[in-house]
Amino acid sequence: MIRMSLIGAGFIGSVHATNLAAHPGVEFVGVADIDTARAVALADRHETRALDVAEALDPAVVDAVLIASSTDTHAQHLRAAAAAGLACLCEKPIDLDLQLATEVVSEVASGVGANARPMMVDFNRRFDRDYAELARLAGDGALGTVELVQMTTRGPVLPPLDYIAVSGGQMRDQTVHFFDLARWITGEDPESVYATGTVFTDPRMADLGDVDTSAVTLRMPSGTLVQIDSVRRTAYGYDERIEVLGSDGMAESDRQRTGAVTRYGRGQVTLDGLHPGWFERVAPTYRSALDHFVSAVASGTQIGPSLHEALKAQAIAEAAATSLRTGQAEQITYPALNSVG
Amino acid sequence: MIRMSLIGAGFIGSVHATNLAAHPGVEFVGVADIDTARAVALADRHETRALDVAEALDPAVVDAVLIASSTDTHAQHLRAAAAAGLACLCEKPIDLDLQLATEVVSEVASGVGANARPMMVDFNRRFDRDYAELARLAGDGALGTVELVQMTTRGPVLPPLDYIAVSGGQMRDQTVHFFDLARWITGEDPESVYATGTVFTDPRMADLGDVDTSAVTLRMPSGTLVQIDSVRRTAYGYDERIEVLGSDGMAESDRQRTGAVTRYGRGQVTLDGLHPGWFERVAPTYRSALDHFVSAVASGTQIGPSLHEALKAQAIAEAAATSLRTGQAEQITYPALNSVG
Amino acid sequence: MIRMSLIGAGFIGSVHATNLAAHPGVEFVGVADIDTARAVALADRHETRALDVAEALDPAVVDAVLIASSTDTHAQHLRAAAAAGLACLCEKPIDLDLQLATEVVSEVASGVGANARPMMVDFNRRFDRDYAELARLAGDGALGTVELVQMTTRGPVLPPLDYIAVSGGQMRDQTVHFFDLARWITGEDPESVYATGTVFTDPRMADLGDVDTSAVTLRMPSGTLVQIDSVRRTAYGYDERIEVLGSDGMAESDRQRTGAVTRYGRGQVTLDGLHPGWFERVAPTYRSALDHFVSAVASGTQIGPSLHEALKAQAIAEAAATSLRTGQAEQITYPALNSVG
Amino acid sequence: MIRMSLIGAGFIGSVHATNLAAHPGVEFVGVADIDTARAVALADRHETRALDVAEALDPAVVDAVLIASSTDTHAQHLRAAAAAGLACLCEKPIDLDLQLATEVVSEVASGVGANARPMMVDFNRRFDRDYAELARLAGDGALGTVELVQMTTRGPVLPPLDYIAVSGGQMRDQTVHFFDLARWITGEDPESVYATGTVFTDPRMADLGDVDTSAVTLRMPSGTLVQIDSVRRTAYGYDERIEVLGSDGMAESDRQRTGAVTRYGRGQVTLDGLHPGWFERVAPTYRSALDHFVSAVASGTQIGPSLHEALKAQAIAEAAATSLRTGQAEQITYPALNSVG
Repeated sequence: MIRMSLIGAGFIGSVHATNLAAHPGVEFVGVADIDTARAVALADRHETRALDVAEALDPAVVDAVLIASSTDTHAQHLRAAAAAGLACLCEKPIDLDLQLATEVVSEVASGVGANARPMMVDFNRRFDRDYAELARLAGDGALGTVELVQMTTRGPVLPPLDYIAVSGGQMRDQTVHFFDLARWITGEDPESVYATGTVFTDPRMADLGDVDTSAVTLRMPSGTLVQIDSVRRTAYGYDERIEVLGSDGMAESDRQRTGAVTRYGRGQVTLDGLHPGWFERVAPTYRSALDHFVSAVASGTQIGPSLHEALKAQAIAEAAATSLRTGQAEQITYPALNSVG
Repeated sequence: MIRMSLIGAGFIGSVHATNLAAHPGVEFVGVADIDTARAVALADRHETRALDVAEALDPAVVDAVLIASSTDTHAQHLRAAAAAGLACLCEKPIDLDLQLATEVVSEVASGVGANARPMMVDFNRRFDRDYAELARLAGDGALGTVELVQMTTRGPVLPPLDYIAVSGGQMRDQTVHFFDLARWITGEDPESVYATGTVFTDPRMADLGDVDTSAVTLRMPSGTLVQIDSVRRTAYGYDERIEVLGSDGMAESDRQRTGAVTRYGRGQVTLDGLHPGWFERVAPTYRSALDHFVSAVASGTQIGPSLHEALKAQAIAEAAATSLRTGQAEQITYPALNSVG
Repeated sequence: MIRMSLIGAGFIGSVHATNLAAHPGVEFVGVADIDTARAVALADRHETRALDVAEALDPAVVDAVLIASSTDTHAQHLRAAAAAGLACLCEKPIDLDLQLATEVVSEVASGVGANARPMMVDFNRRFDRDYAELARLAGDGALGTVELVQMTTRGPVLPPLDYIAVSGGQMRDQTVHFFDLARWITGEDPESVYATGTVFTDPRMADLGDVDTSAVTLRMPSGTLVQIDSVRRTAYGYDERIEVLGSDGMAESDRQRTGAVTRYGRGQVTLDGLHPGWFERVAPTYRSALDHFVSAVASGTQIGPSLHEALKAQAIAEAAATSLRTGQAEQITYPALNSVG
Repeated sequence: MIRMSLIGAGFIGSVHATNLAAHPGVEFVGVADIDTARAVALADRHETRALDVAEALDPAVVDAVLIASSTDTHAQHLRAAAAAGLACLCEKPIDLDLQLATEVVSEVASGVGANARPMMVDFNRRFDRDYAELARLAGDGALGTVELVQMTTRGPVLPPLDYIAVSGGQMRDQTVHFFDLARWITGEDPESVYATGTVFTDPRMADLGDVDTSAVTLRMPSGTLVQIDSVRRTAYGYDERIEVLGSDGMAESDRQRTGAVTRYGRGQVTLDGLHPGWFERVAPTYRSALDHFVSAVASGTQIGPSLHEALKAQAIAEAAATSLRTGQAEQITYPALNSVG
C-alpha cells in the first residue's frame, strides 16, 4: 500500500479520486484544493480527508502525490514534491512555458539522488489497451521498420473559449498527446514539423491565435513520417485512430463504437455511434496509468512517460505552433537539461 | 441506501460482493457462507462483516438479500427471505426441480401482500447493453413484427464434469439464459420446442445424459420462430450473438472482440480475438442487474425478471431436455401458480 | 473450344447466354426456346443463332448443352442429352417429382458407359468464392471436426404467387440450395430433418401449402448439426450467411454489402446496404459454375454437383416439406439408383 | 453505337480492349500499336482489326479514339485526334512536361469550336463506386462544409526501376490520382502543398531523385486541408482509403478485402486480405470510365475529367515534387490557357 494524496478537486481531479479510492494498492490519504469546500466535498464522497497543500506534500503523511490542479500550479507542486522526496504523477503539461518547464525538470532531475522516486506525467493514452498493442507491435519488430504513422484526434465539441484561451492552443493542448504517442511508437525524436490549420468553428478562435482543424507532419531522423489530423469539433462524436505502417505489415487501432448492435434497414446498415466525448473514450486509461504509476513506485523504477519525455512532447508542440504561424516546416529544438531525468 | 447482505462467497458470490461494495445506493451489511472462513475472507476484502445465514436474512439488519449460494439452497433462502419480507435478488435457478421451484414461487407469490418486495432472478444477460437495445427495438416496433430470432451461445471450454453432473444439463444450465431472452425479446411464451444434440467433447458427457452441442427451435403462438445453437467448447473463445428479424428490418448484436486493433499482413487481416470466457463477456451485466434491482427496491416495483418468469424459462428448458431424449418436438407446459408473482 | 447450345431464353437463360458468349473456351452455337421469337432475340443479342430443340441437342452440332428451360421440361432434355452423348449443365431441379427425377438419373447413369460425359446440376452457390473457401476450410481439416453449421437465406421480396404455386414450395425452391451446401460442406448426408414454418406475408401462401419463414434443423450421421433459416421477404435486402463451427475454429461467410463507404453522423454510423436481390449477390457464381463445367468437359471428369447429388438435396427437401406438415422430425430416405452417377 | 479505335496494345491497352469489345454502345473498330505484331495479337483476341495509327485517327473510320500508348506519345495523338475532330479518352498524363502539356491543351481547347467533341483524361478512380459516393456526399452538402480529407494510396510492390525512371516520380505517377480526387471532392484548387518523403526500399530510388514513401499536405483557398500518404511497397497488399470530414459528418471509403470470410481461431480473428495489386482494386473503374466517356460522346457534353482538369492535377504534382526537394511548403501555380477547355 502506498499512501497517496491528490491535489486538485476539479473534473479531472474527481476522476482521479475515484480511481485512487478503488485502487487496492493505494491508501487514499486525502484531497487538497484551492477551493476548500470543493476538496471537502470530494473527500467526503470517497470517505477520505480534505488536506491543505502542505499536508498533501508532507512525506510524513504520503509517499506519492497526484497533481491535478490548474496548469499554472503544476510546476510549483512538482518542485515541492521533488524536494519532499515524493513520487509524483502529474497531469500534463509541466508548465505551458517551455523555458520554465525545462528549468523545473532540470532542477528535479539534478536534485534527485539515491532517494529518487518516479515522476511520471499522465500521458494517459499510452495506457490505452489498443495503443499499447500498437507500440508493442512497433517496438518488438512485428511490423518491421516503422515507416509511416497516421493519427487522428477529433473532439466532438469546441471547448469553451475561456478554456481555449489558457490551453496553449491546439498543438500544446490536444495534439501534444499524439506527439508523445508518435515518439513512443516510433522510438524516435522528430527532427522537423510542418503544421497548417484553419478556423472553421468560431471566428474568435482566430483572435486567440488558435486553430480548430489542423494537419501536422513530423519527420523522424530515420526518415519515418507521421501525419496527424487534429479537429476540435466533429458532428459525429469523439474520434481517435492510429495506423502504424511498417516494412512487414500495418496495424491499426480503429475508432471505437459504443456498442456492437447493427441495424439492417431498407438500403442501409446502421451501427452504434462513436463515444460522445473524449472522457468516455479514454476513461479506462486513467485507471491503467495509475496502475503503472503504483507499480513504478513499488518497483522504484520509471515505467511511464518521464518528465523529460513530457518536455520533448512539449518542444514538438512549440515548433508545431511556430509552423502554424510561419506556414513553413520548422526544425525542432529539444531543451538541454543539466542532468537527464 | 438499502441494506443488503450476500449469501454465498464462491466465485459468483465474490463478483457480487465487489459490486455490492462499490454500489452507491447499497450499504453492504455482510456475507454469509456455509464455509465460515470463506465468508470471513470475502467480507474482509470488502471491509464488511461475516454473517450467519439468520443474520443475512434478518429484516432488522437488512432490507434485501442477494442469494448466490449453491443451487440446492436457493429455494430455502428464497422462502426465508419472503417470510422475512425482504427484497431478494436470486441467482438462477430457483431449484433444478421444476415442481419444487413452482411450489416455492406459488408460496412466495401467495404469501406476499401489502408488504410485497421485489424478487428478481439474476438473468443478467437482460442487462447487457446490446441485448437491451435488441429488446427495445423489438418491443417498440422499430423492427415491425418480430418473425425470426437467431441466437448463439458458445463457451470456450467444457466445464468440469462434476459441475456438469449437478448443472441440470445444457438446456437447464446454459441455454436457459436464451430461453429467457427469447421470451423477453419476442414478448411471447413459446408453445413448442425441438432440440437435438451431440457429444463431441468427452464421452462421459453422454453417460451423464448430457450433450455439449445442440440445436434448438422454439415456436411461438404467433408463428415467430427462434433458433438457438448452444456449444460448450469452442477453439476460439467465448461467443454470443443474437439476430432479431422483423417485418421492417433486422438487428444484430454481434460477437464481441477484446480490442479494436487490426493487423494487416501478407494476404490476411487479423483482428483481436473474442473474450476468453463467459465472465469477461458478461461481467458488466452483473453491475447493471444490481442497479436495476436497487431501483426496483427503491421504487417498490418489479423491473426485472420475476420468479414467475424464471419458472417459465425453466419450463422451456424441461421440454427441451425432453426433446433431446425423444428426438421429437415437444409441447411446453407452463406451471400453474396459486397466484401469479 | 467446346461447342455449346442453350435451351431456354427466359431470365436465367439470358444470364447464361451472356456468360456463354463471353467464355473463351466456349463456342456459343445457339439458343433454343419454346418461344421462337424470344430465342431469336436472345441469339441476336449475342451474335449467335436461334436453334430448334433438336439442333440444340444434336451431337453433330454441339458437344454440350445448358438446360435453362422451364422446370417441367428439364427431365426430357436431360434424357435426350444423355442419349445423344452430350455433356450437360442443367438448372435445378431435375424434376419436382422426386420419383420421376430418380428414374431419369437412374436411366442416365445406367445408360452412360465409355462415352459418359459430365452431367452437372447448376447449384451455383458452390461456386461462390466465399462458400468455396468455407468448404475448403471444412474439407481440409483446417477447422477440425465440423460440429455445427448455421445458414441464413433471406430474399427481399415475396416472389409472385404464380411462381410460388409451381415452385414446389420454400424447401424445394429456396432452401434446397442450402441442403446441397450443407452436404457439400459437411461431407455427409443428413439422416433426419426438422422443419417448422410460418406465413407472415400473404395469407394465400398458406392456401398454397407453403410458408415464407422457416427454421430447419438437419442431423448428420456423425452428430453434426445444421440450422437453416429461410425467409422469403426481408425489409433490408438480400441476405445470405453461413457459419461453420469445427472443433479447431470457426469460419463465417458474412452477409455482403454493396460498397465499402461508411458514413459517420450524429450518434450513428451508417454502412452501405445489402444487395437488393438474389441475382446481384450470386451473379458471379454463374460464370464460375460455367467455368467449372467447361473444365469438367475438357477433363472428362465430373467436378461439380452431379445429378445424383442433386437428387440427394431434393430428397432432403422432400423430408423437410413433410416435417413442415407433420410438425415432427422426419427421417430422410435417399432414392436408390440402378447404378450411381 | 460509336466507332472507337484503340492506340496502344500493352498491358493497359489490353484492359481497354476487353472493355471496348464488351461495351454495347461501342463498335470496336481496331487497335494500333508501334509494335504491329502486338496490335495484331490483341485485335485477334477481340475479333477486331489491327490498324495503323493514321487509320485509328481517321474520322472516316472512327468517331472516337482511346489513347493508351506510351506516355511520350500522348501529346501527338491528342493533337491529331483534336485536328480530326475525334472525341478522345486519353490515359494520364497528357505529357510529363507540364509546359508541353499546357501547350497541347491550349491548342486543343482553342482549336475546337462548333464541332468540339469530349476529350477526357482517364482518371479512372473518379469512377470507383465508393469514391463517387464520397464526391456525391461532399458535393450535395450531406457532410456540410468539407473541412479535412485524409487519403491513403499504397501499392504492394516497388515498380521496376526502369519504370520509375520514366514515371516522373511518385508525385506525378502515383499521388497525382489523389490530387485529382482531392480537387474533385473538395471542389477547390489547392493553393499550397507541402511534401516530404523517404526512400525505404531500394537506395537507387534516391539516385533517381524519387521517394517511395511520402506525406503530402494540400491547403485549399477556403482553408480545407488534405493529407495524403503515398507508399510504393507494403507487405500487405494494395491499400487505398479516403476519409472526408465535413462540418455535419464524415464519410469513409475503407480499404477493400478480397472476400467476406472471417476465420475465428485461438485468440485471433482473421479476415481475407487486401487486393494483391492496384489492378484488382480498380479494374471495374476502367469499365465505368468508358461508360461515362461513351455517354459524354453520345450527349456531346463533357462529363468526366477534362484535359484542363488533368493539367491542374499535374500542376499540383509539380509543386509537390518541388516541395519534396526544398523541404518547404510551396505555392501552386496553375498554367494559364489561351482558352479554357
